[in-house]
Amino acid sequence: MRNIQVSELDRRAVEDQEVEIVERKGIGHPDSICDGIAEAVSRGLSQLYLDRVGHVLHYNTDETQLVAGNAAPSYGGGEVVDPIYVLIVGRATKEYETDDGRELTLPVGRVALESARAYLREALPELEVGTDIVVDVKLGEGSGDLQDVFGEDGAQVPMANDTSFGVGHAPLTETERIVLEAERELNGAYGADHPEIGQDIKIMGKREGDTIDITVAAAMVDAYIDDIDEYREATERVEAFVTGLAEEHTDREVHVEVNTADDLEEGSIYLTTTGTSAEQGDDGSVGRGNRANGLITPNRPMSMEATSGKNPVNHIGKIYNLLSTDIAEAVVEEVDGIRDLQVRLLSQIGRPIDQPHVADAQVVTEESVAVADIEEEATAIIDERLANVTDVTRRVIDGEITTF
Amino acid sequence: MRNIQVSELDRRAVEDQEVEIVERKGIGHPDSICDGIAEAVSRGLSQLYLDRVGHVLHYNTDETQLVAGNAAPSYGGGEVVDPIYVLIVGRATKEYETDDGRELTLPVGRVALESARAYLREALPELEVGTDIVVDVKLGEGSGDLQDVFGEDGAQVPMANDTSFGVGHAPLTETERIVLEAERELNGAYGADHPEIGQDIKIMGKREGDTIDITVAAAMVDAYIDDIDEYREATERVEAFVTGLAEEHTDREVHVEVNTADDLEEGSIYLTTTGTSAEQGDDGSVGRGNRANGLITPNRPMSMEATSGKNPVNHIGKIYNLLSTDIAEAVVEEVDGIRDLQVRLLSQIGRPIDQPHVADAQVVTEESVAVADIEEEATAIIDERLANVTDVTRRVIDGEITTF
Amino acid sequence: MRNIQVSELDRRAVEDQEVEIVERKGIGHPDSICDGIAEAVSRGLSQLYLDRVGHVLHYNTDETQLVAGNAAPSYGGGEVVDPIYVLIVGRATKEYETDDGRELTLPVGRVALESARAYLREALPELEVGTDIVVDVKLGEGSGDLQDVFGEDGAQVPMANDTSFGVGHAPLTETERIVLEAERELNGAYGADHPEIGQDIKIMGKREGDTIDITVAAAMVDAYIDDIDEYREATERVEAFVTGLAEEHTDREVHVEVNTADDLEEGSIYLTTTGTSAEQGDDGSVGRGNRANGLITPNRPMSMEATSGKNPVNHIGKIYNLLSTDIAEAVVEEVDGIRDLQVRLLSQIGRPIDQPHVADAQVVTEESVAVADIEEEATAIIDERLANVTDVTRRVIDGEITTF
Amino acid sequence: MRNIQVSELDRRAVEDQEVEIVERKGIGHPDSICDGIAEAVSRGLSQLYLDRVGHVLHYNTDETQLVAGNAAPSYGGGEVVDPIYVLIVGRATKEYETDDGRELTLPVGRVALESARAYLREALPELEVGTDIVVDVKLGEGSGDLQDVFGEDGAQVPMANDTSFGVGHAPLTETERIVLEAERELNGAYGADHPEIGQDIKIMGKREGDTIDITVAAAMVDAYIDDIDEYREATERVEAFVTGLAEEHTDREVHVEVNTADDLEEGSIYLTTTGTSAEQGDDGSVGRGNRANGLITPNRPMSMEATSGKNPVNHIGKIYNLLSTDIAEAVVEEVDGIRDLQVRLLSQIGRPIDQPHVADAQVVTEESVAVADIEEEATAIIDERLANVTDVTRRVIDGEITTF
Repeated sequence: MRNIQVSELDRRAVEDQEVEIVERKGIGHPDSICDGIAEAVSRGLSQLYLDRVGHVLHYNTDETQLVAGNAAPSYGGGEVVDPIYVLIVGRATKEYETDDGRELTLPVGRVALESARAYLREALPELEVGTDIVVDVKLGEGSGDLQDVFGEDGAQVPMANDTSFGVGHAPLTETERIVLEAERELNGAYGADHPEIGQDIKIMGKREGDTIDITVAAAMVDAYIDDIDEYREATERVEAFVTGLAEEHTDREVHVEVNTADDLEEGSIYLTTTGTSAEQGDDGSVGRGNRANGLITPNRPMSMEATSGKNPVNHIGKIYNLLSTDIAEAVVEEVDGIRDLQVRLLSQIGRPIDQPHVADAQVVTEESVAVADIEEEATAIIDERLANVTDVTRRVIDGEITTF
Repeated sequence: MRNIQVSELDRRAVEDQEVEIVERKGIGHPDSICDGIAEAVSRGLSQLYLDRVGHVLHYNTDETQLVAGNAAPSYGGGEVVDPIYVLIVGRATKEYETDDGRELTLPVGRVALESARAYLREALPELEVGTDIVVDVKLGEGSGDLQDVFGEDGAQVPMANDTSFGVGHAPLTETERIVLEAERELNGAYGADHPEIGQDIKIMGKREGDTIDITVAAAMVDAYIDDIDEYREATERVEAFVTGLAEEHTDREVHVEVNTADDLEEGSIYLTTTGTSAEQGDDGSVGRGNRANGLITPNRPMSMEATSGKNPVNHIGKIYNLLSTDIAEAVVEEVDGIRDLQVRLLSQIGRPIDQPHVADAQVVTEESVAVADIEEEATAIIDERLANVTDVTRRVIDGEITTF
Repeated sequence: MRNIQVSELDRRAVEDQEVEIVERKGIGHPDSICDGIAEAVSRGLSQLYLDRVGHVLHYNTDETQLVAGNAAPSYGGGEVVDPIYVLIVGRATKEYETDDGRELTLPVGRVALESARAYLREALPELEVGTDIVVDVKLGEGSGDLQDVFGEDGAQVPMANDTSFGVGHAPLTETERIVLEAERELNGAYGADHPEIGQDIKIMGKREGDTIDITVAAAMVDAYIDDIDEYREATERVEAFVTGLAEEHTDREVHVEVNTADDLEEGSIYLTTTGTSAEQGDDGSVGRGNRANGLITPNRPMSMEATSGKNPVNHIGKIYNLLSTDIAEAVVEEVDGIRDLQVRLLSQIGRPIDQPHVADAQVVTEESVAVADIEEEATAIIDERLANVTDVTRRVIDGEITTF
Repeated sequence: MRNIQVSELDRRAVEDQEVEIVERKGIGHPDSICDGIAEAVSRGLSQLYLDRVGHVLHYNTDETQLVAGNAAPSYGGGEVVDPIYVLIVGRATKEYETDDGRELTLPVGRVALESARAYLREALPELEVGTDIVVDVKLGEGSGDLQDVFGEDGAQVPMANDTSFGVGHAPLTETERIVLEAERELNGAYGADHPEIGQDIKIMGKREGDTIDITVAAAMVDAYIDDIDEYREATERVEAFVTGLAEEHTDREVHVEVNTADDLEEGSIYLTTTGTSAEQGDDGSVGRGNRANGLITPNRPMSMEATSGKNPVNHIGKIYNLLSTDIAEAVVEEVDGIRDLQVRLLSQIGRPIDQPHVADAQVVTEESVAVADIEEEATAIIDERLANVTDVTRRVIDGEITTF
């Protein structure tokens, strides 16, 4: 009954295209900081509403703005001079009347600040919240007639709040995997062992034919670097690490460069006090960086919607971008013979979100496989995932799905 | 000598694809307001530097944030209750030492405010600047070593400030033209005759096969609408107008709907005091809406770069997005036989911007035409445009090129 | 029935004291700008409530903060570089339910901005509102249970909102009159003829015995001054004018100095672009400058209450400071034989404001007059003024009484 | 050689006046919070300059503004709903060139935040800094030519930065002592044992003849109060404590009332979550509350200067208010026979601060003592204290002198 279409993709698999460009802004990039704050605030508000009201009320916090500070990094440890300024912007329901007539006042401002600060402390351990960065909040009252219901027993599937679309794809190409994994590892296990690596890591992958160039810009943390030699060693370690990681994902030729804009002779290097360029001159805001799957992939269709910070109950721009990615991954995992799969979900305002106007899967199959061979199986998976669309909402609130 | 490649596009022309989605956020949309302010501030600063210093200094103002207000629209004329708040964010050079040793202090804060306010007055005539909207500014000092040179006699071509890419395409599909033109006309000649139409017009085009659905969300201005009947007539006029306009661009079947979320029975309509939803609950920021060609086109590769507000001298994210569009349009205009053309320009940090790492034109030709037939002609045009890359800078500063 | 006491003041008349210090910060001084804005906002809100609701609702706007800008004044006309920032702070009632059940939304934010901007345009004509100065507003919701009633037919006298006191005195001493009149004239008729005089005029009067030193600090406006000679002439004109004015008020020896901190040799002078030192480094806030009678008079008891910006209906800190001054002036005008009169009004929270806990008039009489001679007459005037206390409220709302 | 004058005060001792009014705003009052922050920031900056540069550079931070939040206090523990907002305003030197030509960048913004936050944590333990209160900072660049020198070997006595005056007096009257001590004890030992008492304690003392009324407004902290009975007991404990304390200072009749505006029947009580009314509706700013000696004393001459936050090196408005109080206390302690002493110090701009234009001590002596009897002794003490004026600067920086 759902309008699910499976057809052939009218292009080569991205893996087979001649030129491919992929980018990821790491969690310490100013735009990603804003994405992360916006999503942390969103989770905090959802949880507040669930705890107090039993279901999620109307809110939207997808507009955090970061104004860069000034810093004086220095070998062995410098300092922030003027703090970074972050303004959390959005709407949230502040007053609610319960069924039994009690008037609840919901501390949305305080919860937004708490959520943002807790996120910052975790994501950017070298940044001292409150002195290196000021977090402020302007939350207007949401439009009262748009209160969404999620979390109640027997709740209905919400209606789409807009005519919008989401797009996802799978599997990742080699270049995409390298870019994504390199940032995650550098900000994960590698970073845990190497505190000299800041969180502001930007990775650009460019593949021309069978040559992959990976350019890493990694903010170094001055407290762990005593001189230019240690700096050079730190960048060389990153280069070796990313090269090794890349070679696990591809047999193509890989070149890795780290902090290419450095001029070591001149002492012009990428040294920071806090691990992010937000400390000195780089502003940021939500929705300007990674798409919902964590990457910027101009070879593929992308949605302009900011996924982070939006209400996960009925905000279709968020749900359909996350769900289409989820569907694409599920189909590719369960169905053999797919080289490239692109899933688009188009909503219609006012229609239940489990019944998109179109759910459109386009595939590049392996040579031996026809679209018809996989159509039924793919359709079933798509149908099942759409039926359980509210799982996405729950997993977003629980922080199980990343949005950037 | 420039690395220009012309090849076949490995997909159908977008015009031939089964499903096409196109969107445009009109100039009064909160995101577009931010784009417009950011670009107006950019032009103001460029002009300030040219007037005082003779060339453009380092700046970047691509981060305006808008926090929505509260309003009480009402038939015959309502009012803004709490003002909209706009924060202009960025970096700009405030001090400059001339060749003859004079220390200039450049009024970047005041010029940013002047530019933004003048833009708002022109773009949103129903909005009273200063009381309906507060405009504030936080401009940090730019990194001093990145002072760009533009405008001097005998100036060199600037070096790329980043490894980035731009993408443009031509010609527009029918759906793209309808969406783009409809907004421009509604905010142009039609709007001049019909002041009841606000500037916050969002147009979504969806084509499935040969059926085009155009959904228009148009904020109405309460001062010019006295009751629900006048409101209904106003939306019907827009519907008729857009239908007529669409039919000039296509022979396909066209359906136009205006303000579909209205519920006239309930009196739930899209009425505003100022012509923009920013007055009530809709926040906005730069780079979240239209791409450099004025459209959001998920069927085509898009750059995530915010074009508006960036320094047009050496900010490659801005220049290459505008230039690639410009090149695509020029090639299609001058060379016969092209159904769809996509131009990508990839920079390399530190390299002159007239010599991109790759300039990559991919075409879908008409059936009777081979790529080889047009390669030489297209290459020549691309080469010539690249050679004159600084024209883009000049035209941006003069306001001849729109960025959103 | 009112507790009115008339007694002898246990000190000499201030006119007879050996050392007397008097100061006035002119309307363009940063603290006075804040006072003026706060009071303009207060009048605007009172009028809004009277127009929409029929009586004045709860508000308090006595906390405007001004953050100085940066400017580059220059002979013949300089410019503001970074704008002044003004934050209007306070509480105001935003929602009101009328007797017939209509819910009114009151545009307090917009009215505050309108009032402040109109005031600035009038008070500081050289300052371009919106570009030289940014005006922002943060008005919280007032505590709902404190809605004050003023303006209704048959309204009761309001109850005091606090235990507080006000103090006034009359007549002014010679030094006080000179200081007050000099500023008013310089910012009045003299200023109208001499646009080179800015509004930021600070006058300090010091009398030792029979010698009065008047020190004037007057910001000059660069657009009307072409060189150091014109500057010197301008200050000399002010000196001559103030000397003449002073000699109309006293037979004592008067010395006037203007802009004593200048060093003309070094070109270190008091030149501004906008007529106020707020353009460059001097912050300001409400209640830090002139008391309710326009002067700072350490020889006399003073209230610390900020009079400007407070609700004139029941805010006793405002009403009693204005009323006590008014009473003192009335008594001195109507009763002969008074050399110095000090009136104190002490409220008690919850008691009608026309019945102060104590109304206490202390006098220094002329030698030939005993306190007993004037007690009855003075008491009658005080009683009558207290009975008509709400006149003060009306005159404040109408802008007939200055508060700083 | 200093111009020191000792003369008879031309009024009765305040202790002998018929009506006396005294007020103290406790450390948790919104105005006092601002005073405390401003002074903490001032100490932080002084220490920063001493540590890095060796002497104190130009700054002035006497303009903190507090915008109240919203809270929902509740028996057993409520919460802040919308955070308090604090804006630290001022000027500070950010760049300094050392004698050996190094360019120092001074982290004044970060130090201001650190100082303010540390102060808040100590002064208001129930307030969670960062979520219950947002602290922001706008520090402009100080005027470069006004760099003050303090702390260097062989430093000269600074010159007065303004023509201003300070005033101090001693000894305190009984009423003054009761008001001062009551707040200090409630916020001291008593508060340590009674965490239900918040820091926002406002005490008003009124003496008429031999009857002293003490009105205490004490914010109670909801986490430590479970119901209306506990609340009543808490206020009764305060009443008993203050009554006892008062009786140690006077033999006059004393009446103490606590939270007189309460209506226990209606449940309208002074309950807070954080211990300060800033959480709900009460804004604050610097210099609006206590004078330099900790009291508001309309029976005595007062300076309007905000003492807190000013540079203690050469800001005469600060130094002379603190020094005159210090002198008055020293004279009264060392010289017998003084009932009331008032010391005024009047500066002259550009003159060394140890040589005031006038140092003027006025006394009411005991009946058996003539002014001539004490003149020499008093003059010597005043002279000695003026000679050591820079001690005040050092003690202020070390936090040994309170300013409000």
